Amino acid sequence: MNAYTSLERTFARLAAIQDAAGILGWDCQTQMPDGAAGARADQLAVLRGLAHEILTAPETADRIEAARAEAVDPGQAANLGEMERAHRHAAAVPPDLVEASSRAVSKAEMTWRSARAESDFARLAPDLAEVLRLQRAIGQAKGEALGLAPYDALLDGYDPGLRRAVIDPIFAVLRAELPGLVARIAERQAARPAPIAPEGPFPVEAQRRVGLALMEAAGFDFTRGRLDVSLHPFCGGARDDVRITTRYDESDFARALMGVLHETGHALYEQGRPAAWHGQPAGEARGMTLHESQSLIVEMQACRSPEFFRYLAPLLREAFGRSGPAWEAENLHRLATRVEPGPIRVDADEATYPAHILLRYDLESAMIAGDLAVADLPGAFDDGLHALIGVRPADDRLGCLQDIHWPGGAWGYFPTYTLGALAAAQLFAAARQAEPDLLPGLARGDFGPLRGWLRRHVHARASLAGTDAILADATGATLGPDAFLRHLEARYLAA
Amino acid sequence: MNAYTSLERTFARLAAIQDAAGILGWDCQTQMPDGAAGARADQLAVLRGLAHEILTAPETADRIEAARAEAVDPGQAANLGEMERAHRHAAAVPPDLVEASSRAVSKAEMTWRSARAESDFARLAPDLAEVLRLQRAIGQAKGEALGLAPYDALLDGYDPGLRRAVIDPIFAVLRAELPGLVARIAERQAARPAPIAPEGPFPVEAQRRVGLALMEAAGFDFTRGRLDVSLHPFCGGARDDVRITTRYDESDFARALMGVLHETGHALYEQGRPAAWHGQPAGEARGMTLHESQSLIVEMQACRSPEFFRYLAPLLREAFGRSGPAWEAENLHRLATRVEPGPIRVDADEATYPAHILLRYDLESAMIAGDLAVADLPGAFDDGLHALIGVRPADDRLGCLQDIHWPGGAWGYFPTYTLGALAAAQLFAAARQAEPDLLPGLARGDFGPLRGWLRRHVHARASLAGTDAILADATGATLGPDAFLRHLEARYLAA
Repeated sequence: MNAYTSLERTFARLAAIQDAAGILGWDCQTQMPDGAAGARADQLAVLRGLAHEILTAPETADRIEAARAEAVDPGQAANLGEMERAHRHAAAVPPDLVEASSRAVSKAEMTWRSARAESDFARLAPDLAEVLRLQRAIGQAKGEALGLAPYDALLDGYDPGLRRAVIDPIFAVLRAELPGLVARIAERQAARPAPIAPEGPFPVEAQRRVGLALMEAAGFDFTRGRLDVSLHPFCGGARDDVRITTRYDESDFARALMGVLHETGHALYEQGRPAAWHGQPAGEARGMTLHESQSLIVEMQACRSPEFFRYLAPLLREAFGRSGPAWEAENLHRLATRVEPGPIRVDADEATYPAHILLRYDLESAMIAGDLAVADLPGAFDDGLHALIGVRPADDRLGCLQDIHWPGGAWGYFPTYTLGALAAAQLFAAARQAEPDLLPGLARGDFGPLRGWLRRHVHARASLAGTDAILADATGATLGPDAFLRHLEARYLAA
Repeated sequence: MNAYTSLERTFARLAAIQDAAGILGWDCQTQMPDGAAGARADQLAVLRGLAHEILTAPETADRIEAARAEAVDPGQAANLGEMERAHRHAAAVPPDLVEASSRAVSKAEMTWRSARAESDFARLAPDLAEVLRLQRAIGQAKGEALGLAPYDALLDGYDPGLRRAVIDPIFAVLRAELPGLVARIAERQAARPAPIAPEGPFPVEAQRRVGLALMEAAGFDFTRGRLDVSLHPFCGGARDDVRITTRYDESDFARALMGVLHETGHALYEQGRPAAWHGQPAGEARGMTLHESQSLIVEMQACRSPEFFRYLAPLLREAFGRSGPAWEAENLHRLATRVEPGPIRVDADEATYPAHILLRYDLESAMIAGDLAVADLPGAFDDGLHALIGVRPADDRLGCLQDIHWPGGAWGYFPTYTLGALAAAQLFAAARQAEPDLLPGLARGDFGPLRGWLRRHVHARASLAGTDAILADATGATLGPDAFLRHLEARYLAA
């Protein structure tokens, strides 16, 4: 067995361990009795420790070195590159730093839950400072190993190849263009009568049936996945076993529905990765920007189009046994595309959402650089949000305590939400051009043209190429803000 | 860190891996979409492979050797003994034999499903022969390492310390006594009017609520466990997360109900193991004989007592909204204690059940010894059953194809079912004597006296002592057939 083949075996083993952890993680959010939390944490820690040991073992490094000298085809070369990337990221961080960070994160997440509930930032501050200290150390360690600045090294962990130098010019355009655009949208909205909100209750079982029907229409493969309920919706699971979740609210069907469509977009990516590369790094999803693009292309681009609402409205009337002006396609569509600045990121519409990310990007990169202290975060957060969208959070619960990312140790992750929105707009525009039946299809509930295009241009490429190459091949350009801005203009200001 | 402490860490890691596999196994039977079977098999194989590597690593052997020279307390000494036992069992079998057996079992189990469905033994025969060949090799290899005959070595894997020399005299008594006993029971039953079967349907949700109520009464801790549905009921899961399953039949509530009580008995053992020894071999359940005794003490001894039916009958009438003579405690109790020889082991009553085990014990020990060929199994099975209980299976589906154990590679397991029934009778008799409120308690749905006694005398001892010592300390005698025979006489022939 040559070095490359031996590495393939090692990484298949790693993938199986990660898949096992994926199912255990899903179980944790959906099935596990409370008393099992400690034992489950042990199980996951041991699996992660084993994976880290295998990935950083000297034999793994030696084989990567040896495999470079072997003749491999382009797919294998890409796979070897991804193996090396994974190894370097893991090996860069000493095991005691990994462990210290993991412990600090568990503690900070616990504290965050109560601190957020009581809007008490001071309670979280020491734990958050410790997480930040360790994230800075990790960024430093990875940066040294990878030849990157610390924050770039953290970005690279979520989205290979992503750098501040890529983000800054894009975010500068959004910073310049969005305030005016949002103001014009608000003006236009104000000039029209407000849409009518359908009145609940909307039984959970009916909501669930609509969600399942839409997943089916979108092409979710139920022989290799499930829909369940959890407090925080997510897409998880394992190879051939993609599990998405939602949360139902009997007074509001739109949130669960759009949540299911969002997670279905993630799931289609996971289910569409090439079977030939399963278990290998080159067969993984490319990174968080493209992953988020796949959820947003379904939720925001396809399923907030007027065409899709022509399909959706009768389906909803039937499911809930209701009718009347509130249930007309046009009214429901206007409801689903209201633009309204507010303090909460996850509730934001697509036009004001980027402001939440611009803010978090500025703040977290400043904190990693040592230019912003944890104690100064609440003020900087509130002032920053006010400057961007004119909203000042009433308290820290609605401000800098709203997200789990920072106590959760996910620093360098936030930018991929907005970059994903841009990629979604760019990909959707290219898909519409290539597939004339795409929008007419959505009006019939036929996702085939969109899904087929995405499968070929994104899903099937997995990590066999970089994000830039995948986007350039699919759309003729690397990632930029133009398609997104044109999309907002077309949806909110045209006609 | 001394060698013993270092071993404790290693075995805690092993326990976490096994717990992870426990949850994945549960998921497989209750949640997993069909298309995930292959990926799940990979995950479990990798986890098992890692556990085997850790357990058989030369460092593990060295540390066990070194720890023997260190001063340890009696609990630690027992733990060290169990570590050594686990290591010797694992190290005795070469990795390629483990892998070959695992692959042969997967194949034979698949074939068995269709062969059983179509009662086609010839289809299974080659796969079964291969499983047998590898079981003989494993028995041989373990036997050499442990200084045991091959079949004894297989027995020892399910029930440490169990030997043919223990089983044979016990089974000889059963073989001699049971036919006459069953004949007398049949005679007595025939002389009385038959009990009345309640008429269905019995809604699943009502059955589930009764099951949950009885689990609660028995002392199942729902903060550390669950009840779910699967095709084949089992007790699985992980530390602090004991998951039992059942299967509902709307035309027969008794099967799911008694199944839930059976698995609850297993679960109480798992939940009652001492927390101080969690993750260590000495903290594990002692073996399959004692495990089965815990399920049968709840299902057969406690919950088929006339006292318990006084509690159960009104609960059932309430749950199903029914009444009348069929729903009287005495009638329901007589239904639940009918004795009737039949071909299917899992449907057998407690008086004829041992015959099914005597038969399988004879056949599998002969096959392991090389004295019975796979091709001759169907005939030997049918003749054997007829000789024991006068029943001849109509076809192989009702004969030697009924159980998954042999194609599933569980050779040396069957005897523990009947040994468990004997242990249950022996323990229950001792518990009744020690706890005068035990039976009166059951009539009120109060399992406290029984559970408390079992917790102290069985659960809390985990693997800190051997089966014989646990039984002798609890009942004054090592395992034997007398209490079981006395129990059958008292229940079926007295009064």
